[in-house]
Amino acid sequence: MELKDILKPIETDLQKVELQLHEAARAEFGPLAMVIESIIDSGGKRIRPAVTLLAGRMFPQAEENLLKLAVSVELLHMATLIHDDLLDKATTRRGSATINSKWDSKSTVLAGDYVWAKAAKIAAEVGNPKVLGIFADTILVIVEGEIKQDYTDAKSRPQRDEYYTRIYAKTASLFEGAMRSAAVLGNAPEQHMNALGMYGRKLGTAFQIIDDVLDFVGTQSDVGKPVGNDLRQGVVTLPAIMYYENHPNHPIIKSIAVKNGHSTQDLEAAIEEIRHSPEMMEARNEAQEFVREAQRELRVLPKSKYRQALHELAEYVVERNK
Amino acid sequence: MELKDILKPIETDLQKVELQLHEAARAEFGPLAMVIESIIDSGGKRIRPAVTLLAGRMFPQAEENLLKLAVSVELLHMATLIHDDLLDKATTRRGSATINSKWDSKSTVLAGDYVWAKAAKIAAEVGNPKVLGIFADTILVIVEGEIKQDYTDAKSRPQRDEYYTRIYAKTASLFEGAMRSAAVLGNAPEQHMNALGMYGRKLGTAFQIIDDVLDFVGTQSDVGKPVGNDLRQGVVTLPAIMYYENHPNHPIIKSIAVKNGHSTQDLEAAIEEIRHSPEMMEARNEAQEFVREAQRELRVLPKSKYRQALHELAEYVVERNK
Repeated sequence: MELKDILKPIETDLQKVELQLHEAARAEFGPLAMVIESIIDSGGKRIRPAVTLLAGRMFPQAEENLLKLAVSVELLHMATLIHDDLLDKATTRRGSATINSKWDSKSTVLAGDYVWAKAAKIAAEVGNPKVLGIFADTILVIVEGEIKQDYTDAKSRPQRDEYYTRIYAKTASLFEGAMRSAAVLGNAPEQHMNALGMYGRKLGTAFQIIDDVLDFVGTQSDVGKPVGNDLRQGVVTLPAIMYYENHPNHPIIKSIAVKNGHSTQDLEAAIEEIRHSPEMMEARNEAQEFVREAQRELRVLPKSKYRQALHELAEYVVERNK
Repeated sequence: MELKDILKPIETDLQKVELQLHEAARAEFGPLAMVIESIIDSGGKRIRPAVTLLAGRMFPQAEENLLKLAVSVELLHMATLIHDDLLDKATTRRGSATINSKWDSKSTVLAGDYVWAKAAKIAAEVGNPKVLGIFADTILVIVEGEIKQDYTDAKSRPQRDEYYTRIYAKTASLFEGAMRSAAVLGNAPEQHMNALGMYGRKLGTAFQIIDDVLDFVGTQSDVGKPVGNDLRQGVVTLPAIMYYENHPNHPIIKSIAVKNGHSTQDLEAAIEEIRHSPEMMEARNEAQEFVREAQRELRVLPKSKYRQALHELAEYVVERNK
């Protein structure tokens, strides 16, 4: 199923979110406005606003606040991408040039700060202190996760639990926080709020695993980054962890995992081995398992076109190729 | 008068703020906690929490929320310093080593983001959407101001109006927002809210002018930075602007002002000329004028020890030598 068909029930909402994102880009200062506009235009699937809206629409509530929440969630996501790309020295994202490849690092840090502040401002306009608390907590989790990743000691072998902690901070926490916030805004009963939060967490986990799989197998034009980019950056993701678990004495993978130094040639060979290995499917299956768990969370919620869309969205997330 | 005598009426509050700042530093991740702790310990005068508390104490209100506001204001200030020091490649601040001189730039950006998020979290806990709106607006003003500073075209001569716009964004906006927020929390009448906001704006302006004067005349041990640091960074502040206004054909100052390239020797000579010029006193007098205006704003407020402290604090701000 195509993403746009799945998201039909919130088609109009998503169009309004798109307009509001462009409004949010309207910085007083021209060059800044241009650069933010370019990030917004570079697209992305708007999965985060979509799950926010689907969760929120399950409960009767003021449209204006729900839309603002969805906008602030996407802006927060964008702000983290701006700092990430700078820090990872990435030159392209979704096939477009990153801000840091066009601006100096000073302006890039500040552009990220600016989008961040815009996200906070719009979240503040929602006017719900509980939602703002979730928003701030989510930022803390994301940022602390990134710092930890930087400081993780090289281990004798890469650990799955570390990987899951990392992708919770990086991705799943925002899905969880966004959906929980949408439920809070709709005065949802506790049980529904928790179910949506857990769905978000599991969906976000599956989403990130698939991102990490696509990093190995996706074509550059689809993913917008060179194949094996994570491993090149020294970031060991699930497919590489699984491969290493199954080949504990593999010298190249080991030297990469323990950050012991390795030649470019070794690295290229390792990426080729992993991307053609059965561990790629194993990782996809693990994502599939999270998707099934996410779908199970939905059962406590009343049947509706929104619940159905969340069910289908979960399938889409593991089936996508970009 | 000594600062601590002026701030006597809020002595206990300030102690509590100090404790809460240290609590806020308690990140789950050890190295991050250490680095934030070190910024908090490096001191600073806590002028921003002080004005927040003095404004808030004029009105009956919940102590807990006012303290949180004061803490979040100081954390926000610290977050901007962390990114600033990194972007300016500063190695010392208040005589202590900056984070960026100890950590790589990636971790420093993230540490700034983390302190920022902590500030947002504590501001969210205050639970007042209007205060959060002011908070987010203030961040936007600060960040946009910094970006603009980076992109300002070289002019035939440095402009006072540009200088005032810049220091509003950099310093006065936070003083204004903090004091206005404290009044909002205390349900102050509109007139009092505006007066405190304007006091904050004018005090912040005077505070920054004096900082810029001290950048020329302060000793390194007091200011914690080399003399003439701003001009070395290409930042033309009020004393240099005034000097240039009075010596429009001065070749060295001109080449610095229009960023036309100049030798290190020229730069040192210019710094020496400016720091021994009557324009230093002229700049102090201008700060004194803002202080008088700030004090005039206080007249609409009911007499109290807090109002008196704000009156004296304004004097202190222009008289200080560090």
